[in-house]
Amino acid sequence: MQKLKDKIMKEGTVEKGHLIKVDSFLNHQIDTGLMSDIGAEFYRKFKNEKVTKILTIESSGIAIALMTGVVFNVPVVFAKKQKSLNLGDHLYACQVFSYTKQVTYDISVAKDYLKPKDSVLIVDDFLASGNALAGLVDIVEQSQAKVAGVGIVIEKAFQQGGDKIREKGIRLVALASIQAIEDGKILFAR
Amino acid sequence: MQKLKDKIMKEGTVEKGHLIKVDSFLNHQIDTGLMSDIGAEFYRKFKNEKVTKILTIESSGIAIALMTGVVFNVPVVFAKKQKSLNLGDHLYACQVFSYTKQVTYDISVAKDYLKPKDSVLIVDDFLASGNALAGLVDIVEQSQAKVAGVGIVIEKAFQQGGDKIREKGIRLVALASIQAIEDGKILFAR
Repeated sequence: MQKLKDKIMKEGTVEKGHLIKVDSFLNHQIDTGLMSDIGAEFYRKFKNEKVTKILTIESSGIAIALMTGVVFNVPVVFAKKQKSLNLGDHLYACQVFSYTKQVTYDISVAKDYLKPKDSVLIVDDFLASGNALAGLVDIVEQSQAKVAGVGIVIEKAFQQGGDKIREKGIRLVALASIQAIEDGKILFAR
Repeated sequence: MQKLKDKIMKEGTVEKGHLIKVDSFLNHQIDTGLMSDIGAEFYRKFKNEKVTKILTIESSGIAIALMTGVVFNVPVVFAKKQKSLNLGDHLYACQVFSYTKQVTYDISVAKDYLKPKDSVLIVDDFLASGNALAGLVDIVEQSQAKVAGVGIVIEKAFQQGGDKIREKGIRLVALASIQAIEDGKILFAR
């Protein structure tokens, strides 16, 4: 998606540990026009998959999931990152280790919101080591729903998360795929 | 907003401590059609305020802010609930006590995303004690931007949060205002 790549080149910065910071338009401030285009693009990519739900994880996946859900006209579900006092005990849950924050946390989805008949499109902002995404796939599998596909805004293709998902036979679409970071510069995959 | 009130009556439940659980359509699963209507309604209420930014707090405010920002065609900023490794040090920050979770946490917004020229519409899902909302107002004031108004999806009008904001001369609109909870039943304000 060229508009997204242009935005990453213009406003994205590379931080310590090959972290890519896109806080100006994706995960602190949100460019609403770009987000609408991202939702429309995921619709184009997955419109034949009979998607019944969009699943993501709080917080930065929510905006992406919402704009995708609006175009598909289906509900969005976001996995919670810790057991909340407001959530009941009937949860699908999974442990996830975050390299960025160096902590292990629980992600969970109430069983009411994923059913065996669902065809679930999973979306998220970043894919790197892929632990959060693997956790979401695990939760969909626990519910016996089908993973319709995975839509990622920015994939760091030099890390292994994407391959692990593709090896499971799941279709994964990344709107911007980063091949390498060299001398602090972002190089996109062809 | 009648459609919202109908949804609350149909799917909302009252938990211990007068907590209202609306996880089926507002803050775990999201009804994308209802959320679009909420964004349009906030636009109708605040369209004359020359809004330049929508501000909310992660996580459950993000969907509301996004759908509002799409209609206003302005960026969304969401305050983060703890200092993240991905955020720089140049932050507006404020401490907030959560009655629901019984913890004090920091909320912060990078200084880059709120400027003195901004006219900021603050939106959130719930307003009860109003601590999170007061923190967001404080952050806007730190930035010397103007608070254009506050849009709340569900106000518990029997708690004091809303009054504290109105006493500051800030216009607050709640799309559903709950007057009381009696015997586990939700009673709306007239």
